[in-house]
Amino acid sequence: MNIKLVLAYDGTNYHGFQKQSGTKLPTIQGILEEALRKLTREEIKVNGAGRTDAGVHARGQVVNFRTSARIPPARYVPALNGMLPPDIRVMAAEEVDESFHARYSARAKTYTYTIYNASLPDVFRRLYTWHVSVPLNVEAMRKGAAFLLGRHDFSAFQATGSSARNPVRHLMELTLTCQGPEICLTFTADGFLYNMVRNITGTLVEVGMGRRAPEEIAAILASRERRRAGICAPPQGLCLEKVYY
Amino acid sequence: MNIKLVLAYDGTNYHGFQKQSGTKLPTIQGILEEALRKLTREEIKVNGAGRTDAGVHARGQVVNFRTSARIPPARYVPALNGMLPPDIRVMAAEEVDESFHARYSARAKTYTYTIYNASLPDVFRRLYTWHVSVPLNVEAMRKGAAFLLGRHDFSAFQATGSSARNPVRHLMELTLTCQGPEICLTFTADGFLYNMVRNITGTLVEVGMGRRAPEEIAAILASRERRRAGICAPPQGLCLEKVYY
Repeated sequence: MNIKLVLAYDGTNYHGFQKQSGTKLPTIQGILEEALRKLTREEIKVNGAGRTDAGVHARGQVVNFRTSARIPPARYVPALNGMLPPDIRVMAAEEVDESFHARYSARAKTYTYTIYNASLPDVFRRLYTWHVSVPLNVEAMRKGAAFLLGRHDFSAFQATGSSARNPVRHLMELTLTCQGPEICLTFTADGFLYNMVRNITGTLVEVGMGRRAPEEIAAILASRERRRAGICAPPQGLCLEKVYY
Repeated sequence: MNIKLVLAYDGTNYHGFQKQSGTKLPTIQGILEEALRKLTREEIKVNGAGRTDAGVHARGQVVNFRTSARIPPARYVPALNGMLPPDIRVMAAEEVDESFHARYSARAKTYTYTIYNASLPDVFRRLYTWHVSVPLNVEAMRKGAAFLLGRHDFSAFQATGSSARNPVRHLMELTLTCQGPEICLTFTADGFLYNMVRNITGTLVEVGMGRRAPEEIAAILASRERRRAGICAPPQGLCLEKVYY
């Protein structure tokens, strides 16, 4: 059976999603595979849709794995939740076609990045937002964001030192919504380069601070040079919301 | 000088507000007094308005202390925030009259208790809400809550084993508001007995589950017997919001 799980997790206490060979650092994948091993009595290897970094969260991470255990798919939700720590929850489980692969079958993903924009931080949001104390001009950020929509070479917003074989991605959605002191950026694309959301967010925050004009975003994108873009926003504001198949 | 501070803290990692003699367990008071000692170079003893328990949070805890340090009051906010851990923040500071005492001068306090009412918990709210998976009838809970408004002997909702000299309190506000899967109970009173908010919440949840009729709340209150009331709701849903002077 090929089983698909939807996971939510608070990434605060983990060294990212992906298991790291040769270390004992806790990862989401490592903890989940250990629970699946106990449940199925098989060595299970899960495929994750997105490799979230340390401190990054998920509401809708998707994994799949193959097993010969005869466990009814719906049973995985309560069984795993009874074994996993409270900061990792299985939200849904179903049997999927043999060809389904959480990463390769994904057609698009949605990430959110949340900024807490007030002079003093909110202790209850410190692990889930980036506290920016300078008042941000959200309208300027929206103008800058508009230049990024569509199909582009996003090399300028790729992590330093990394290089995707093909740096072209189709950014279908980039909206900014405000709720009280929080500014939430929602990104939907057919795929994301490493650190792309955090690098775009960091650059747009510089626009919001008035340090860059919104039009500069178009020039940075066209340059395809990482050094032209702004800072990388910290991990805790980022959340993998949904994977589309 | 008599200085008043307003504090916000995430109580998750603390053994309550109050310093515990003879132990090294971290408390809000202990951490704050240590920071004040370094800042003022005096031994400082703070008076807290409310003694929140382990795991209980605050957005508007108030403390006062006396010092001969010549520090401009507004300076305490950035100076202390530079020394305190990120889960404790000083939100305001001012000089107050010599007679001001954070606890004895308080005229009323507002606490909230937040329930997360959905079949599966939200990992991001697990430290700040009580997850109740059974669907609750909020209208029934509101009917039950109405019997508690006004000046009453609240002995039935006092923690087992504790006894206030005078168990009469004036409950001025008890409202239930819903936002998505969250139910927020807001309590304002001239004072609270030990565990009063958590015991009332636990009992109202039993009403919401249909295990008790709303009218039973009136009988429990009149009985003044703790054993008649329901369970004590867990600490992490509770937050001290505001103290009125």
